[in-house]
Amino acid sequence: MPVSEDYNDEPWCDRDLNNYIIRSREPFNAEAKVDGLIDSYVTPVNKHFRRNHGPIPNLDKESWNVTIEVDTNELHISKTLNLNDLNQLPQFEVIAVLECAGNRRDGLKAIKEVNGVTWGAGTASNSQWGGCRLRDILVSIGVPKDLCSKFYEQVRHVEFAAYGEATDDKHYASSIPLEWVMNPQNTVLVATRMNGQALIRDHGFPARIVAPGIIGARWVKWLRSIRVQDRESDSYYQQLDYKILPPMATGDNCDKFWPQFPALQELSIQSAICRPAPGEKLQIGRPYVVRGYALSGAGRAVDRVEVSLDCGRTWELAKLVSMQGPNSNGKHEWSARHWAWVLWSFPIASVPSRCSIACRAWDAGGNTQPDAAVWNYRGVMNNAVFRIEPPTTVGGGKL
Amino acid sequence: MPVSEDYNDEPWCDRDLNNYIIRSREPFNAEAKVDGLIDSYVTPVNKHFRRNHGPIPNLDKESWNVTIEVDTNELHISKTLNLNDLNQLPQFEVIAVLECAGNRRDGLKAIKEVNGVTWGAGTASNSQWGGCRLRDILVSIGVPKDLCSKFYEQVRHVEFAAYGEATDDKHYASSIPLEWVMNPQNTVLVATRMNGQALIRDHGFPARIVAPGIIGARWVKWLRSIRVQDRESDSYYQQLDYKILPPMATGDNCDKFWPQFPALQELSIQSAICRPAPGEKLQIGRPYVVRGYALSGAGRAVDRVEVSLDCGRTWELAKLVSMQGPNSNGKHEWSARHWAWVLWSFPIASVPSRCSIACRAWDAGGNTQPDAAVWNYRGVMNNAVFRIEPPTTVGGGKL
Repeated sequence: MPVSEDYNDEPWCDRDLNNYIIRSREPFNAEAKVDGLIDSYVTPVNKHFRRNHGPIPNLDKESWNVTIEVDTNELHISKTLNLNDLNQLPQFEVIAVLECAGNRRDGLKAIKEVNGVTWGAGTASNSQWGGCRLRDILVSIGVPKDLCSKFYEQVRHVEFAAYGEATDDKHYASSIPLEWVMNPQNTVLVATRMNGQALIRDHGFPARIVAPGIIGARWVKWLRSIRVQDRESDSYYQQLDYKILPPMATGDNCDKFWPQFPALQELSIQSAICRPAPGEKLQIGRPYVVRGYALSGAGRAVDRVEVSLDCGRTWELAKLVSMQGPNSNGKHEWSARHWAWVLWSFPIASVPSRCSIACRAWDAGGNTQPDAAVWNYRGVMNNAVFRIEPPTTVGGGKL
Repeated sequence: MPVSEDYNDEPWCDRDLNNYIIRSREPFNAEAKVDGLIDSYVTPVNKHFRRNHGPIPNLDKESWNVTIEVDTNELHISKTLNLNDLNQLPQFEVIAVLECAGNRRDGLKAIKEVNGVTWGAGTASNSQWGGCRLRDILVSIGVPKDLCSKFYEQVRHVEFAAYGEATDDKHYASSIPLEWVMNPQNTVLVATRMNGQALIRDHGFPARIVAPGIIGARWVKWLRSIRVQDRESDSYYQQLDYKILPPMATGDNCDKFWPQFPALQELSIQSAICRPAPGEKLQIGRPYVVRGYALSGAGRAVDRVEVSLDCGRTWELAKLVSMQGPNSNGKHEWSARHWAWVLWSFPIASVPSRCSIACRAWDAGGNTQPDAAVWNYRGVMNNAVFRIEPPTTVGGGKL
């Protein structure tokens, strides 16, 4: 199968550069400009961040296929599916936020240099994903459906590998626990659609993993193989990246720390201010509506978002202006899984001459954002309280 | 069925008062003295905290029974089981930490008065619980086994009610989501044993709920009924207690806040220093080993515990001295659920004259403890970084 082996065949025509801050061109890494990011609850494809570890494969939908393997102590199965096979399976749609584990890495770089692409708060996006359930595919080839069966007494993983080359390993690969996939509440998809249309190349055409509640690094694009196995992926991206190492682990000594700490899976509670955007000036004495997003991991609902205008001494509730889920009756029940983000707003009646704004979110598991960021070598999962102090101006408007 | 209607029939002979700090006698509320709490990985019954909302029922094991009901739109089933019936079902054992949502409430009371019993860090204990799985009971009476069935497309709860009277409602009751119960990974038990012996009255004789990873308030004791229903419990203890209200909610205005915030279910990341115990003097210049526990919720593993001796400027890793789970190979895989606590130790080579000690834990979901406690009206889920400054002495020992 022909794939791009270099950067001469990048899909530039699909990249609306006005909407992005480009962090690297090869591989193409670009985050959304945050003020445009929250104009709609579902993020348009051309505002969804782009995160790559190599050239973008150029796959042909007619000849593309994915190998499904089970390679465990008891079971050995192998099968190949093409796009037509996937389309024959029951189709599901789920609105889920995709967040890069490196979102807001800039806050950790500000403490001390880290190993990773610089990102602001623009690597989170909320999309409607469509495709078939990975669970249904696995059941169809013989993986036990019943989570009570002996098969699940042992910890197993499902590894996803991508077509194309990657910068730090022979190709991109990653795994998530099998029991997570097989739990029907979790809706892990082999997705072929994003916001109702075929995936574009930057987002994994023709098929990618969608693993709601899990870090973006496990949502493998340009699927080449899916493999049920008795251990985690051996990939660089599972074992030597995407872990929160303790602060004493550095580039010089991290070898001994990697095996001691788990590969990240669940997202954690997060919020960011998108308006004011970085550099946006506020007009002193005028009203302003602060806006942003909040999200959490593993299906935990965002309960509340709080804003402080006095450096964290007091906090007030933001209004949650757009959220998905079973809460439409106004009563908040902990139960169904929440995969999407929440958009919020907070009006300021009169912008002061010096304006400090902070936000923090809480999830239904009682988790909130740490007051200060704790540095880690790979600069992942920075979810410290989000703070800005936008420039102010007397402004030209009528007061 | 005869039950205690007042406090004249309390099981005082089962209460080893030397091990406890009594917070109230009627109802009997006593937390463990923390230095004794961590002498063993599994907490002895006579060191396990006692948390009650009324007089202790005095139930007869021969005549005791529990009503199992399904009362949903589609299904209406009712059945009564006695102890003999429970013993006929497959038996399971699970080591799980039980933590009261009010653990460490003293830290919130120190900020502003809260509505709740004062507790230090002595309301967490780690026990081996034995009994039958609630899932098996529900399947045996006709609740669909397959989480993929249409029955689970709607949010449902399982309500547990207790024998006996309670202070704030006609009896104690509480609920957890049905899908949590039916997921075989979660091992929710109708427990009749604790550390290999029959439950004592203070712990729910003859049968109680054990819901690993969930707050203690849902582990209902002296089981009277189990009810699958289309909504959360209406109980005071579900709707008007055991919620983290935002800081602007007080006794005067909380009515409007209760329905907006979810009932607590999952525990959150927590750690505490047990040695030195409150008031324990350290000898200047001598070595000392700081010790404590750490735990998290919903099956998330505790990854690491860190200790700071310089008011949080730098942190070092504590040694995890005792932990359950799939990590015996020294490699830490995120996958199987972790229900038990972790005990940890941290040696100090030479106690300084002024000794500040702080600890914080991290879980596999990337969550850590907030630096400062955030006050809430009911004083629940205080998991701020644990800080002590024990008194020091020149000491009488040989230096």
